[in-house]
Amino acid sequence: MEIIKDLPEVFEEFAEQRQKSFLMMKELKDKGTPVVGAYCTYFPKEIAMAMGASTVSLCSTSDETIPEAEKDLPKNLCPLIKSSYGFAKTDKCPFFYFSDVVVGETTCDGKKKMYELMGEFKDVFIMELPNTQGPEALKLWKKEIIRFKEYLEKRFEVTITDEDVRKAVKIENEARKALKRLYEVMQHDPAPISGHDLFKVLYGSTFKLNRSEIAGEVNALVDKIEAEYASGKMLEKKPRILITGCPIGGATEKVIRAVEDNGGVVVTYENCTGAKSIDRLVDENAEDIYQAIAERYLAIGCSVMTPNPNRFDLMGRLIDEYQVDGVLEMTLQACHTYNVETRAIRKFVNEEKGIPYINVETDYSQADVGQLNTRIAAFIEML
Amino acid sequence: MEIIKDLPEVFEEFAEQRQKSFLMMKELKDKGTPVVGAYCTYFPKEIAMAMGASTVSLCSTSDETIPEAEKDLPKNLCPLIKSSYGFAKTDKCPFFYFSDVVVGETTCDGKKKMYELMGEFKDVFIMELPNTQGPEALKLWKKEIIRFKEYLEKRFEVTITDEDVRKAVKIENEARKALKRLYEVMQHDPAPISGHDLFKVLYGSTFKLNRSEIAGEVNALVDKIEAEYASGKMLEKKPRILITGCPIGGATEKVIRAVEDNGGVVVTYENCTGAKSIDRLVDENAEDIYQAIAERYLAIGCSVMTPNPNRFDLMGRLIDEYQVDGVLEMTLQACHTYNVETRAIRKFVNEEKGIPYINVETDYSQADVGQLNTRIAAFIEML
Repeated sequence: MEIIKDLPEVFEEFAEQRQKSFLMMKELKDKGTPVVGAYCTYFPKEIAMAMGASTVSLCSTSDETIPEAEKDLPKNLCPLIKSSYGFAKTDKCPFFYFSDVVVGETTCDGKKKMYELMGEFKDVFIMELPNTQGPEALKLWKKEIIRFKEYLEKRFEVTITDEDVRKAVKIENEARKALKRLYEVMQHDPAPISGHDLFKVLYGSTFKLNRSEIAGEVNALVDKIEAEYASGKMLEKKPRILITGCPIGGATEKVIRAVEDNGGVVVTYENCTGAKSIDRLVDENAEDIYQAIAERYLAIGCSVMTPNPNRFDLMGRLIDEYQVDGVLEMTLQACHTYNVETRAIRKFVNEEKGIPYINVETDYSQADVGQLNTRIAAFIEML
Repeated sequence: MEIIKDLPEVFEEFAEQRQKSFLMMKELKDKGTPVVGAYCTYFPKEIAMAMGASTVSLCSTSDETIPEAEKDLPKNLCPLIKSSYGFAKTDKCPFFYFSDVVVGETTCDGKKKMYELMGEFKDVFIMELPNTQGPEALKLWKKEIIRFKEYLEKRFEVTITDEDVRKAVKIENEARKALKRLYEVMQHDPAPISGHDLFKVLYGSTFKLNRSEIAGEVNALVDKIEAEYASGKMLEKKPRILITGCPIGGATEKVIRAVEDNGGVVVTYENCTGAKSIDRLVDENAEDIYQAIAERYLAIGCSVMTPNPNRFDLMGRLIDEYQVDGVLEMTLQACHTYNVETRAIRKFVNEEKGIPYINVETDYSQADVGQLNTRIAAFIEML
């Protein structure tokens, strides 16, 4: 990607990253590169990267495979889980097809049980993610990370050294720093770019097979955005929205559109595409690199944790730093942990941060787009 | 309870145990007995018993408190969780009211997040139950049990010795052995008593405040049943049903009735009122009694575990030992783990055990009783 391109073109390139990576998969496999697929932001990708594997985000964001999934899974299950399983079962996800192993974590009830079914036709490696973030849970999680390393070593007949892991940590940290620099451009008010364009880069970067390219490309993009902003190129002033809740991507981008088509701008994402999975670095200088990786990942503020203080900490910080006017939480139907946690989040946003909050519960169909527009337009008008 | 009573009278006495214990609670509290409330079969009650506390099963089986719960919790959540929270919030459960502390475990998504809300108005002690049953998970769980002991010691200013714990283990083991002897009477074909009468005793015994009374009373009851059976008193021959799935009690006893009103007899319960929570003893002679307790409880074959081999082992054994003709699985709406696991259970029952299987998904309303009767009658007719 040369920096001479216009911003819209760069955003579209990132948006197309997923498709581009599809095409690169076969090439990679032909070269003998192991491919490790995963669904979740808890996946400690540095371990797989350390042995030279490509890590890929598996398909889970379209409703096209849900009917097939519902033949094996309950209908009343979150669409992300059904979609994931449906893509796997119908072999419609090239990333899944080319993955030598799929790594799952015991995050939520639906996922952990779905992986049992997936394990009937694919190599699935399950990591036990604890439900809490205390010292004993951390010990267990660290052991799981080492067990994963040992599994890869045995499975692919390689040796993964601490040095390999540290190298991967550096690459991912550089990517995180660049992506963080990127989303921090939204601290400007008025915002320099739309929240959907920001999303395209954040989301697209998760499909980058060559992780070491991310930092350079994204940093160049940030420089360009900042330069244009300095020269006066920016959006008009709009109500500033923080999006939180379940993972967004594909079908659920309808929520971002509903905000930005109705006069708002999404200035920050406290979710798995945004700050939640980027904000924290792994301590590169830690004496025990596995300990550092375990700490970093276990600290993710997902609602599967009980209690889940890090989510509130991060959200509070983002609301302040991005001068947020209102919080929109998108939850997926039947996602129990996020849906239960909405109550505490609403209270926190309203009472501690003193700004409005709206929760939209949705699935992967487009049937509710009209309703979403109506509700979200009314919310933004109120700000 | 004197053994001179007729069987129906004894069954009714057990059925009324919950109400009777309500009345005894105040008396207990006036005497200064600590009360520890819990919802789940993973609760290691021996630890609380070891300090002389009464352990009680908290109310969770009626739909009367669900509307109140739905003000704070998502509607799309399992009725057991909503009912539990509703009873707590409205203070309609005497056991909850008199509990000094409520012990919750990180079993399923809904429960673990609901406990956060409950913690806003009650002392709730959360134990981290792992998602798997391997050696590392066992270590974590054992530490949780010891942490619970230490919490009780601090909270109630007592010392709990290993000897105290061993005594409690013996009492609970004796109760388990007696209850197991009781449900084993159903190995007779024809069955000596109805499955609902069996249920009344199993369920009623969970509300016994004086745990050391259970063994004597239940053993006397078994002797009486066996004596009457020997003298020819028994049910007529009927299709023999194993009930499995989510916990049954209160509102969901409609499922037992639907079986037995339509020509079947429930000969065994592979659920939390039945074999699942009674089958295994704690090893009384273990050098490390905490290790033994941890092993015993972690081995429970609940669908929250992944994988969950112990459920299949126990069910296979019960199907053989009780000459089961058909398996009925009751799942509660929005209970993701049991609902996902139905697929593997159906396959196991049909293909490995070669008998029919039916799944009924229900909630705490009585609106589906007609439909349940129709479906279950058709199932039994087929056997």
